[in-house]
Amino acid sequence: MLKLYNDPFAPSPRRVRMFMAEKAIEYERIDLSIAAGETQNAGFLALNPLGEVPVLVLDDGQCLTESLAICRYLEQRFPEPPLLGVDALEQTRIDSVVQRIMFRAYVPSTLAFRHTHKFWQGRIEQVPEFGAIAKQQVLDEWQLLNDTLAERPFMAGDQFSFADIVAYTTLEFGKPSGIRVNDHQTHLKRWQAEIAARPSAKA
Amino acid sequence: MLKLYNDPFAPSPRRVRMFMAEKAIEYERIDLSIAAGETQNAGFLALNPLGEVPVLVLDDGQCLTESLAICRYLEQRFPEPPLLGVDALEQTRIDSVVQRIMFRAYVPSTLAFRHTHKFWQGRIEQVPEFGAIAKQQVLDEWQLLNDTLAERPFMAGDQFSFADIVAYTTLEFGKPSGIRVNDHQTHLKRWQAEIAARPSAKA
Repeated sequence: MLKLYNDPFAPSPRRVRMFMAEKAIEYERIDLSIAAGETQNAGFLALNPLGEVPVLVLDDGQCLTESLAICRYLEQRFPEPPLLGVDALEQTRIDSVVQRIMFRAYVPSTLAFRHTHKFWQGRIEQVPEFGAIAKQQVLDEWQLLNDTLAERPFMAGDQFSFADIVAYTTLEFGKPSGIRVNDHQTHLKRWQAEIAARPSAKA
Repeated sequence: MLKLYNDPFAPSPRRVRMFMAEKAIEYERIDLSIAAGETQNAGFLALNPLGEVPVLVLDDGQCLTESLAICRYLEQRFPEPPLLGVDALEQTRIDSVVQRIMFRAYVPSTLAFRHTHKFWQGRIEQVPEFGAIAKQQVLDEWQLLNDTLAERPFMAGDQFSFADIVAYTTLEFGKPSGIRVNDHQTHLKRWQAEIAARPSAKA
């Protein structure tokens, strides 16, 4: 049985949980708390020296790290339903949107969180002035993605894909930093409601 | 013939140039200057509305964006020599190292550059205090990667791969921000010299 080391509140393992739920992959889930330091103890560092979740442990004990790499592995092993595209061009289109969202929405969301949220006070050197810039960058990107969704039902085209998982979990992760869909972003709002209604959104 | 829209000084298109050089892929290269605003004019925005290079234009005029997605596309179309691994587990190992370097070294390198370098003065709102934190994060990551290279010849194992391209171009990109290999990082230094000696490093 596959084992997933997870933190219930972290965005990266949530991507993997949602991906596995869409494919109905069975796995054992082991919850750790980043906040309580459980990803920094010797036992976990033996699985991933970087002390990051998710880690997917295979039947033979091999540990896979990095959520995007894990999802690509799972797509090969459990191809149905396809979430990363079925031919080279479709795969590239989806991948391109995934990369875009990761670098233009997810990364600045993590920076906004780290540099503005009280959770990080005293844990890292916060620079709130920079956090505000990062937050604005995220808000600008959601506006662009709202416009994109005027032209297509899902983030990467006509089909639900990993790009929607990455976008939805990024949007959810933004909430504690005050990053929300606003009422004028009707396309983003429609899309958010549709993704939230999928059972995998609760995984 | 494939066409690559490029900026000679930007790290993301350099990844693709190096990848194509390793595979001896022929293409037409079109150089633009981000600094001179050439990626923001209407002609280029028609190819990529985000105004980012690289863009790879296929024979039929389709435009592919995002360097990592472009390289994965090229790997499928030009499989030799393999740079992304030949079976699912090897692909995952390489991908995992690529993701690690992108998020832990490349992203903070871009932030250090943007928030400390004079090129960006007056172009964006700089927060030098944050730039210094980002720079330190990059330096810490290179130290970890130096330790990793004590145990294996290349970033992702025994073979040269895309992980080395991503790491090398990130290290090169750090230079204007004062991010260098130090004399005590003997493994990183050995690896850097080996990668620099490959013809693709000059692509």
